[in-house]
Amino acid sequence: MKGRLYGVGVGPGDPELLTLKALRLLRTCPVVAYQSAEDKESVARGIVAEYLPGNQIEVKYHLPRALDPYAAQPIYDQVVTPIAEHLAAGRDVVVLCEGDPLFYGSFMYVFTRLSDQFETEVVPGVSSPMGCASALSVPLTYRDDVFSVLPATLPAETLKAQLLNADAAAIIKLRRHFAKVRDVLHHLGLASRARYIERGTMINQKIISLDEVYPDQVPYFSMILVPSQSRL
Amino acid sequence: MKGRLYGVGVGPGDPELLTLKALRLLRTCPVVAYQSAEDKESVARGIVAEYLPGNQIEVKYHLPRALDPYAAQPIYDQVVTPIAEHLAAGRDVVVLCEGDPLFYGSFMYVFTRLSDQFETEVVPGVSSPMGCASALSVPLTYRDDVFSVLPATLPAETLKAQLLNADAAAIIKLRRHFAKVRDVLHHLGLASRARYIERGTMINQKIISLDEVYPDQVPYFSMILVPSQSRL
Repeated sequence: MKGRLYGVGVGPGDPELLTLKALRLLRTCPVVAYQSAEDKESVARGIVAEYLPGNQIEVKYHLPRALDPYAAQPIYDQVVTPIAEHLAAGRDVVVLCEGDPLFYGSFMYVFTRLSDQFETEVVPGVSSPMGCASALSVPLTYRDDVFSVLPATLPAETLKAQLLNADAAAIIKLRRHFAKVRDVLHHLGLASRARYIERGTMINQKIISLDEVYPDQVPYFSMILVPSQSRL
Repeated sequence: MKGRLYGVGVGPGDPELLTLKALRLLRTCPVVAYQSAEDKESVARGIVAEYLPGNQIEVKYHLPRALDPYAAQPIYDQVVTPIAEHLAAGRDVVVLCEGDPLFYGSFMYVFTRLSDQFETEVVPGVSSPMGCASALSVPLTYRDDVFSVLPATLPAETLKAQLLNADAAAIIKLRRHFAKVRDVLHHLGLASRARYIERGTMINQKIISLDEVYPDQVPYFSMILVPSQSRL
Protein backbone atom coordinates (compact mmCIF):
# COMPACT_ATOMS: atom_id res chain seq x y z
CA MET A 1 0.00 0.00 0.00
CA LYS A 2 1.22 3.45 -0.89
CA GLY A 3 2.03 6.00 1.79
CA ARG A 4 -0.04 9.09 2.43
CA LEU A 5 1.21 12.59 1.67
CA TYR A 6 0.56 15.29 4.29
CA GLY A 7 1.20 18.96 3.56
CA VAL A 8 1.38 20.51 7.01
CA GLY A 9 1.38 24.23 7.80
CA VAL A 10 3.62 25.00 10.77
CA GLY A 11 2.50 28.62 11.14
CA PRO A 12 4.37 31.92 11.00
CA GLY A 13 7.26 31.16 13.35
CA ASP A 14 6.29 30.78 17.01
CA PRO A 15 6.43 27.02 17.70
CA GLU A 16 3.41 27.39 19.98
CA LEU A 17 1.33 28.46 16.95
CA LEU A 18 1.49 24.91 15.62
CA THR A 19 -1.91 23.21 15.45
CA LEU A 20 -2.70 20.05 17.40
CA LYS A 21 -3.21 18.21 14.10
CA ALA A 22 0.19 19.26 12.76
CA LEU A 23 1.79 18.13 16.03
CA ARG A 24 0.13 14.73 15.90
CA LEU A 25 1.20 14.08 12.32
CA LEU A 26 4.78 15.21 12.65
CA ARG A 27 5.19 13.07 15.75
CA THR A 28 3.81 9.91 14.14
CA CYS A 29 4.83 9.93 10.45
CA PRO A 30 7.99 7.97 9.59
CA VAL A 31 9.24 10.57 7.10
CA VAL A 32 9.47 14.35 7.50
CA ALA A 33 10.39 16.49 4.49
CA TYR A 34 11.12 20.22 4.30
CA GLN A 35 12.52 22.71 1.84
CA SER A 36 15.45 24.99 2.61
CA ALA A 37 17.85 27.31 0.86
CA GLU A 38 20.95 25.50 -0.35
CA ASP A 39 23.35 25.96 2.56
CA LYS A 40 20.93 27.15 5.24
CA GLU A 41 18.91 25.49 7.96
CA SER A 42 15.26 24.95 7.03
CA VAL A 43 13.00 27.56 8.63
CA ALA A 44 10.05 25.17 8.75
CA ARG A 45 12.13 22.48 10.47
CA GLY A 46 13.44 25.07 12.94
CA ILE A 47 9.89 25.95 13.96
CA VAL A 48 9.03 22.34 14.87
CA ALA A 49 12.49 21.11 15.94
CA GLU A 50 11.48 20.73 19.59
CA TYR A 51 8.60 18.42 18.71
CA LEU A 52 10.42 15.96 16.42
CA PRO A 53 10.68 12.53 18.04
CA GLY A 54 14.21 11.98 16.72
CA ASN A 55 13.74 8.62 15.01
CA GLN A 56 12.39 9.83 11.67
CA ILE A 57 13.78 9.80 8.17
CA GLU A 58 14.34 13.43 7.18
CA VAL A 59 14.25 14.59 3.58
CA LYS A 60 15.63 18.03 2.82
CA TYR A 61 14.94 19.52 -0.60
CA HIS A 62 15.91 22.73 -2.32
CA LEU A 63 13.75 24.73 -4.71
CA PRO A 64 15.86 27.09 -6.82
CA ARG A 65 13.70 30.22 -6.99
CA ALA A 66 15.10 32.50 -9.68
CA LEU A 67 14.51 30.05 -12.51
CA ASP A 68 12.41 30.62 -15.56
CA PRO A 69 9.20 28.65 -14.84
CA TYR A 70 9.53 26.53 -18.00
CA ALA A 71 13.20 25.64 -17.48
CA ALA A 72 12.40 24.91 -13.83
CA GLN A 73 9.89 22.10 -14.37
CA PRO A 74 12.33 19.17 -14.79
CA ILE A 75 14.35 20.43 -11.82
CA TYR A 76 11.27 20.62 -9.59
CA ASP A 77 10.26 17.16 -10.80
CA GLN A 78 13.62 15.88 -9.62
CA VAL A 79 13.34 17.71 -6.28
CA VAL A 80 10.17 15.82 -5.31
CA THR A 81 11.46 12.39 -6.39
CA PRO A 82 12.78 11.32 -2.96
CA ILE A 83 9.37 12.14 -1.44
CA ALA A 84 7.65 10.10 -4.16
CA GLU A 85 9.97 7.16 -3.48
CA HIS A 86 9.10 7.05 0.23
CA LEU A 87 5.38 7.24 -0.61
CA ALA A 88 5.71 4.49 -3.23
CA ALA A 89 7.47 2.36 -0.62
CA GLY A 90 4.45 2.73 1.66
CA ARG A 91 5.79 5.33 4.06
CA ASP A 92 3.63 8.30 5.06
CA VAL A 93 5.40 11.62 4.51
CA VAL A 94 4.79 14.93 6.30
CA VAL A 95 5.96 17.88 4.23
CA LEU A 96 6.48 20.89 6.49
CA CYS A 97 5.60 24.34 5.22
CA GLU A 98 5.91 27.76 6.88
CA GLY A 99 2.53 29.44 7.35
CA ASP A 100 -0.14 27.68 5.33
CA PRO A 101 0.66 25.09 2.63
CA LEU A 102 -1.80 26.23 -0.06
CA PHE A 103 -1.30 29.97 0.48
CA TYR A 104 1.92 30.98 -1.36
CA GLY A 105 3.41 27.85 0.21
CA SER A 106 6.45 25.87 -0.95
CA PHE A 107 4.30 22.74 -0.54
CA MET A 108 2.54 23.59 -3.80
CA TYR A 109 5.55 22.38 -5.79
CA VAL A 110 5.07 18.99 -4.16
CA PHE A 111 1.28 19.07 -4.31
CA THR A 112 1.01 19.76 -8.04
CA ARG A 113 3.38 16.87 -8.81
CA LEU A 114 2.29 14.16 -6.38
CA SER A 115 -1.31 14.69 -5.29
CA ASP A 116 -2.71 12.79 -8.27
CA GLN A 117 -0.48 9.77 -7.60
CA PHE A 118 -0.77 9.56 -3.80
CA GLU A 119 -3.54 10.13 -1.30
CA THR A 120 -2.95 13.67 -0.06
CA GLU A 121 -4.19 15.64 2.92
CA VAL A 122 -3.43 19.27 3.66
CA VAL A 123 -3.36 20.64 7.20
CA PRO A 124 -3.87 24.41 7.20
CA GLY A 125 -1.68 26.63 9.34
CA VAL A 126 -1.74 30.11 10.82
CA SER A 127 -0.79 32.38 7.94
CA SER A 128 1.79 35.15 8.30
CA PRO A 129 -0.57 38.14 7.73
CA MET A 130 -2.63 36.97 10.71
CA GLY A 131 0.48 36.14 12.73
CA CYS A 132 1.90 39.61 12.04
CA ALA A 133 -1.39 41.38 12.82
CA SER A 134 -1.42 39.67 16.21
CA ALA A 135 2.25 40.48 16.85
CA LEU A 136 1.54 44.13 16.01
CA SER A 137 -1.78 44.09 17.92
CA VAL A 138 -3.42 45.71 14.92
CA PRO A 139 -7.02 44.94 13.91
CA LEU A 140 -6.66 44.18 10.23
CA THR A 141 -10.18 43.94 8.77
CA TYR A 142 -13.75 44.64 9.88
CA ARG A 143 -17.21 43.96 8.53
CA ASP A 144 -17.41 44.57 4.75
CA ASP A 145 -13.74 45.39 4.16
CA VAL A 146 -11.91 44.19 1.08
CA PHE A 147 -8.56 42.72 2.10
CA SER A 148 -5.73 42.08 -0.36
CA VAL A 149 -2.42 40.28 -0.16
CA LEU A 150 0.05 41.99 -2.48
CA PRO A 151 3.48 40.65 -3.41
CA ALA A 152 6.01 43.52 -3.37
CA THR A 153 7.44 42.11 -6.59
CA LEU A 154 4.59 43.78 -8.52
CA PRO A 155 5.30 47.04 -10.42
CA ALA A 156 4.78 50.29 -8.47
CA GLU A 157 1.78 51.29 -10.57
CA THR A 158 0.08 47.94 -9.95
CA LEU A 159 0.73 48.22 -6.23
CA LYS A 160 -0.76 51.73 -6.22
CA ALA A 161 -3.91 50.61 -8.04
CA GLN A 162 -4.32 47.57 -5.79
CA LEU A 163 -3.88 49.58 -2.59
CA LEU A 164 -6.47 52.10 -3.79
CA ASN A 165 -8.88 49.21 -4.38
CA ALA A 166 -8.51 47.61 -0.95
CA ASP A 167 -9.62 48.62 2.54
CA ALA A 168 -6.74 46.74 4.13
CA ALA A 169 -3.68 44.96 2.77
CA ALA A 170 -0.67 42.83 3.58
CA ILE A 171 2.41 43.43 1.43
CA ILE A 172 4.63 40.36 1.34
CA LYS A 173 7.96 39.34 -0.26
CA LEU A 174 9.44 42.78 0.47
CA ARG A 175 13.19 42.14 0.42
CA ARG A 176 14.83 44.18 -2.34
CA HIS A 177 11.46 45.71 -3.28
CA PHE A 178 11.10 47.57 0.02
CA ALA A 179 12.17 51.04 -1.21
CA LYS A 180 9.65 50.89 -4.06
CA VAL A 181 6.85 49.87 -1.69
CA ARG A 182 7.69 52.60 0.82
CA ASP A 183 7.62 55.20 -2.00
CA VAL A 184 4.20 53.94 -3.09
CA LEU A 185 2.86 54.14 0.48
CA HIS A 186 4.16 57.71 0.90
CA HIS A 187 2.70 58.66 -2.48
CA LEU A 188 -0.73 57.36 -1.47
CA GLY A 189 -0.63 58.94 1.99
CA LEU A 190 -0.65 55.48 3.57
CA ALA A 191 2.83 55.54 5.13
CA SER A 192 1.69 56.64 8.58
CA ARG A 193 -0.99 53.96 8.68
CA ALA A 194 1.31 51.18 7.45
CA ARG A 195 3.12 48.94 9.94
CA TYR A 196 6.37 47.10 9.26
CA ILE A 197 7.45 43.88 10.98
CA GLU A 198 10.33 41.41 10.51
CA ARG A 199 10.08 37.74 11.45
CA GLY A 200 6.63 38.20 13.03
CA THR A 201 6.00 35.81 15.98
CA MET A 202 9.58 34.43 15.74
CA ILE A 203 11.98 34.76 18.66
CA ASN A 204 13.97 37.47 16.85
CA GLN A 205 10.87 39.42 15.78
CA LYS A 206 11.54 43.11 15.10
CA ILE A 207 9.01 45.93 14.87
CA ILE A 208 10.29 49.28 13.61
CA SER A 209 8.76 52.20 11.76
CA LEU A 210 8.81 52.31 7.94
CA ASP A 211 11.33 55.14 7.95
CA GLU A 212 13.75 53.27 10.21
CA VAL A 213 14.09 50.37 7.75
CA TYR A 214 17.36 50.07 5.78
CA PRO A 215 16.13 48.96 2.34
CA ASP A 216 19.17 46.75 1.77
CA GLN A 217 18.63 44.86 5.04
CA VAL A 218 15.07 43.63 4.62
CA PRO A 219 14.77 39.87 5.22
CA TYR A 220 12.44 37.50 3.34
CA PHE A 221 10.30 37.09 6.46
CA SER A 222 9.14 40.70 6.62
CA MET A 223 5.79 42.28 5.92
CA ILE A 224 3.95 45.58 5.77
CA LEU A 225 0.37 45.65 7.00
CA VAL A 226 -2.01 48.42 6.00
CA PRO A 227 -4.84 47.99 8.49
CA SER A 228 -8.43 48.94 7.83
CA GLN A 229 -9.81 52.29 8.91
CA SER A 230 -13.40 51.09 8.98
CA ARG A 231 -15.59 51.54 12.01
CA LEU A 232 -17.14 48.69 13.92
CA MET B 1 -3.32 43.81 39.73
CA LYS B 2 -5.55 43.84 36.69
CA GLY B 3 -6.20 40.70 34.67
CA ARG B 4 -4.87 40.13 31.20
CA LEU B 5 -7.09 40.03 28.12
CA TYR B 6 -6.43 37.28 25.57
CA GLY B 7 -8.10 37.26 22.17
CA VAL B 8 -7.72 33.68 21.02
CA GLY B 9 -8.39 32.37 17.52
CA VAL B 10 -9.87 28.87 17.62
CA GLY B 11 -9.58 28.25 13.87
CA PRO B 12 -12.17 27.42 11.21
CA GLY B 13 -14.02 24.57 12.93
CA ASP B 14 -12.02 21.34 13.30
CA PRO B 15 -11.05 21.23 17.01
CA GLU B 16 -7.69 19.73 16.01
CA LEU B 17 -6.86 22.97 14.18
CA LEU B 18 -6.52 24.75 17.52
CA THR B 19 -2.99 26.00 18.20
CA LEU B 20 -0.95 24.80 21.16
CA LYS B 21 -0.93 28.35 22.50
CA ALA B 22 -4.71 28.66 22.34
CA LEU B 23 -5.04 25.29 24.10
CA ARG B 24 -2.68 26.33 26.92
CA LEU B 25 -4.52 29.60 27.53
CA LEU B 26 -8.02 28.23 27.45
CA ARG B 27 -7.03 25.50 29.89
CA THR B 28 -5.42 27.85 32.40
CA CYS B 29 -7.37 31.12 32.37
CA PRO B 30 -10.07 31.46 35.03
CA VAL B 31 -12.57 33.16 32.70
CA VAL B 32 -13.59 32.14 29.16
CA ALA B 33 -15.80 34.49 27.13
CA TYR B 34 -17.45 33.94 23.75
CA GLN B 35 -20.02 35.56 21.54
CA SER B 36 -23.10 33.79 20.22
CA ALA B 37 -26.37 34.52 18.51
CA GLU B 38 -29.15 35.19 21.00
CA ASP B 39 -30.69 31.75 21.45
CA LYS B 40 -27.99 29.59 19.87
CA GLU B 41 -24.95 27.73 21.11
CA SER B 42 -21.71 29.60 20.57
CA VAL B 43 -19.81 28.23 17.56
CA ALA B 44 -16.44 29.18 19.05
CA ARG B 45 -17.25 27.45 22.33
CA GLY B 46 -18.41 24.38 20.42
CA ILE B 47 -15.03 24.12 18.68
CA VAL B 48 -13.11 24.01 21.97
CA ALA B 49 -15.72 22.32 24.19
CA GLU B 50 -13.69 19.10 24.58
CA TYR B 51 -10.70 21.03 25.93
CA LEU B 52 -12.43 23.13 28.58
CA PRO B 53 -11.39 22.04 32.08
CA GLY B 54 -14.90 22.53 33.47
CA ASN B 55 -14.10 24.80 36.43
CA GLN B 56 -14.06 28.13 34.63
CA ILE B 57 -16.31 31.14 34.76
CA GLU B 58 -18.00 31.41 31.37
CA VAL B 59 -19.19 34.72 29.94
CA LYS B 60 -21.53 34.60 26.97
CA TYR B 61 -22.17 37.80 25.10
CA HIS B 62 -24.32 38.72 22.14
CA LEU B 63 -23.45 41.25 19.43
CA PRO B 64 -26.59 42.38 17.59
CA ARG B 65 -25.36 42.64 13.99
CA ALA B 66 -27.96 44.49 12.00
CA LEU B 67 -27.61 47.71 13.93
CA ASP B 68 -26.65 51.06 12.53
CA PRO B 69 -22.99 51.47 13.60
CA TYR B 70 -23.68 54.72 15.46
CA ALA B 71 -26.70 53.44 17.37
CA ALA B 72 -24.77 50.27 18.15
CA GLN B 73 -21.90 51.84 20.10
CA PRO B 74 -23.57 52.09 23.54
CA ILE B 75 -24.95 48.55 23.14
CA TYR B 76 -21.52 47.14 22.30
CA ASP B 77 -20.05 49.06 25.23
CA GLN B 78 -22.54 47.31 27.48
CA VAL B 79 -21.82 43.89 25.93
CA VAL B 80 -18.15 44.02 26.94
CA THR B 81 -18.81 45.26 30.48
CA PRO B 82 -18.82 41.81 32.15
CA ILE B 83 -15.43 41.07 30.56
CA ALA B 84 -14.07 44.40 31.81
CA GLU B 85 -15.33 43.62 35.32
CA HIS B 86 -13.48 40.32 35.49
CA LEU B 87 -10.29 41.98 34.22
CA ALA B 88 -10.64 44.82 36.73
CA ALA B 89 -11.03 42.22 39.49
CA GLY B 90 -7.68 40.72 38.47
CA ARG B 91 -8.93 37.70 36.52
CA ASP B 92 -7.36 36.83 33.15
CA VAL B 93 -9.97 36.42 30.43
CA VAL B 94 -9.72 34.36 27.24
CA VAL B 95 -12.09 35.62 24.56
CA LEU B 96 -12.70 32.88 22.00
CA CYS B 97 -13.05 33.79 18.36
CA GLU B 98 -13.73 31.62 15.28
CA GLY B 99 -10.86 31.76 12.80
CA ASP B 100 -8.49 34.60 13.58
CA PRO B 101 -9.37 37.36 16.08
CA LEU B 102 -8.08 40.38 14.10
CA PHE B 103 -9.32 39.18 10.70
CA TYR B 104 -13.05 39.99 10.48
CA GLY B 105 -13.24 38.62 14.00
CA SER B 106 -15.91 39.27 16.62
CA PHE B 107 -13.03 39.86 19.07
CA MET B 108 -12.51 43.29 17.50
CA TYR B 109 -15.55 44.64 19.34
CA VAL B 110 -13.85 43.71 22.59
CA PHE B 111 -10.37 44.74 21.46
CA THR B 112 -11.31 48.28 20.44
CA ARG B 113 -13.04 48.89 23.77
CA LEU B 114 -10.70 47.23 26.27
CA SER B 115 -7.17 46.98 24.86
CA ASP B 116 -6.22 50.47 26.05
CA GLN B 117 -7.37 49.73 29.61
CA PHE B 118 -6.02 46.21 30.04
CA GLU B 119 -2.88 44.40 28.95
CA THR B 120 -3.96 42.54 25.81
CA GLU B 121 -2.46 39.69 23.82
CA VAL B 122 -3.86 38.25 20.61
CA VAL B 123 -3.29 34.63 19.60
CA PRO B 124 -3.72 34.21 15.85
CA GLY B 125 -5.72 31.29 14.50
CA VAL B 126 -6.11 29.36 11.27
CA SER B 127 -8.32 31.55 9.12
CA SER B 128 -11.30 30.16 7.20
CA PRO B 129 -10.00 30.83 3.65
CA MET B 130 -6.97 28.66 4.43
CA GLY B 131 -9.11 26.09 6.24
CA CYS B 132 -11.47 25.88 3.26
CA ALA B 133 -8.63 25.67 0.71
CA SER B 134 -7.26 22.69 2.63
CA ALA B 135 -10.67 21.06 2.92
CA LEU B 136 -11.15 21.49 -0.85
CA SER B 137 -7.53 20.47 -1.57
CA VAL B 138 -7.21 23.51 -3.82
CA PRO B 139 -3.97 25.47 -4.15
CA LEU B 140 -5.13 29.03 -3.60
CA THR B 141 -2.19 31.33 -4.46
CA TYR B 142 1.27 31.02 -6.04
CA ARG B 143 4.28 33.27 -6.45
CA ASP B 144 3.26 36.85 -7.38
CA ASP B 145 -0.50 36.40 -7.19
CA VAL B 146 -2.77 39.08 -5.79
CA PHE B 147 -5.25 37.49 -3.37
CA SER B 148 -8.40 39.26 -2.18
CA VAL B 149 -10.98 38.53 0.47
CA LEU B 150 -14.33 39.91 -0.67
CA PRO B 151 -17.45 40.15 1.49
CA ALA B 152 -20.48 39.07 -0.55
CA THR B 153 -22.35 42.02 0.95
CA LEU B 154 -20.67 44.32 -1.61
CA PRO B 155 -22.64 45.48 -4.67
CA ALA B 156 -22.42 43.26 -7.78
CA GLU B 157 -20.46 45.86 -9.73
CA THR B 158 -17.88 46.18 -6.94
CA LEU B 159 -17.51 42.41 -6.73
CA LYS B 160 -16.98 42.24 -10.50
CA ALA B 161 -14.29 44.91 -10.46
CA GLN B 162 -12.54 43.31 -7.48
CA LEU B 163 -12.57 39.84 -9.03
CA LEU B 164 -11.09 41.23 -12.25
CA ASN B 165 -8.31 42.83 -10.19
CA ALA B 166 -7.32 39.69 -8.27
CA ASP B 167 -5.58 36.45 -9.30
CA ALA B 168 -7.36 34.52 -6.56
CA ALA B 169 -10.15 35.33 -4.12
CA ALA B 170 -12.20 34.16 -1.19
CA ILE B 171 -15.80 35.38 -1.11
CA ILE B 172 -17.13 35.36 2.44
CA LYS B 173 -20.41 36.24 4.22
CA LEU B 174 -22.43 34.68 1.40
CA ARG B 175 -25.75 33.92 3.03
CA ARG B 176 -28.58 35.84 1.34
CA HIS B 177 -26.07 37.32 -1.15
CA PHE B 178 -25.29 33.99 -2.76
CA ALA B 179 -27.45 34.38 -5.90
CA LYS B 180 -25.87 37.76 -6.66
CA VAL B 181 -22.37 36.31 -6.28
CA ARG B 182 -23.15 33.31 -8.48
CA ASP B 183 -24.47 35.63 -11.20
CA VAL B 184 -21.28 37.70 -11.01
CA LEU B 185 -19.11 34.58 -11.30
CA HIS B 186 -21.08 33.34 -14.33
CA HIS B 187 -20.88 36.77 -15.92
CA LEU B 188 -17.08 36.84 -15.53
CA GLY B 189 -16.62 33.27 -16.74
CA LEU B 190 -15.32 32.25 -13.31
CA ALA B 191 -18.12 29.91 -12.28
CA SER B 192 -16.40 26.71 -13.39
CA ARG B 193 -13.22 27.66 -11.53
CA ALA B 194 -15.00 28.71 -8.34
CA ARG B 195 -15.45 26.20 -5.51
CA TYR B 196 -18.22 26.33 -2.89
CA ILE B 197 -17.98 24.93 0.61
CA GLU B 198 -20.18 25.03 3.72
CA ARG B 199 -18.77 24.74 7.25
CA GLY B 200 -15.26 24.01 5.98
CA THR B 201 -13.28 21.68 8.34
CA MET B 202 -16.33 21.25 10.62
CA ILE B 203 -17.83 17.82 11.20
CA ASN B 204 -20.84 18.66 9.02
CA GLN B 205 -18.73 20.13 6.20
CA LYS B 206 -20.46 20.10 2.81
CA ILE B 207 -18.85 20.51 -0.61
CA ILE B 208 -21.20 20.90 -3.58
CA SER B 209 -21.02 22.62 -6.95
CA LEU B 210 -22.14 26.24 -7.33
CA ASP B 211 -25.18 25.20 -9.33
CA GLU B 212 -26.34 22.72 -6.68
CA VAL B 213 -26.63 25.42 -4.02
CA TYR B 214 -30.11 26.57 -2.98
CA PRO B 215 -29.64 30.34 -2.54
CA ASP B 216 -32.09 30.47 0.36
CA GLN B 217 -30.24 27.73 2.30
CA VAL B 218 -26.74 29.19 2.45
CA PRO B 219 -25.37 29.26 6.01
CA TYR B 220 -23.14 31.97 7.49
CA PHE B 221 -20.20 29.57 7.54
CA SER B 222 -19.95 29.15 3.79
CA MET B 223 -17.43 30.40 1.29
CA ILE B 224 -16.57 30.51 -2.39
CA LEU B 225 -12.92 30.20 -3.33
CA VAL B 226 -11.66 31.31 -6.73
CA PRO B 227 -8.23 29.68 -6.89
CA SER B 228 -5.30 31.05 -8.85
CA GLN B 229 -4.55 29.85 -12.36
CA SER B 230 -0.88 30.84 -12.20
CA ARG B 231 1.86 28.38 -13.01
CA LEU B 232 4.53 27.40 -10.52
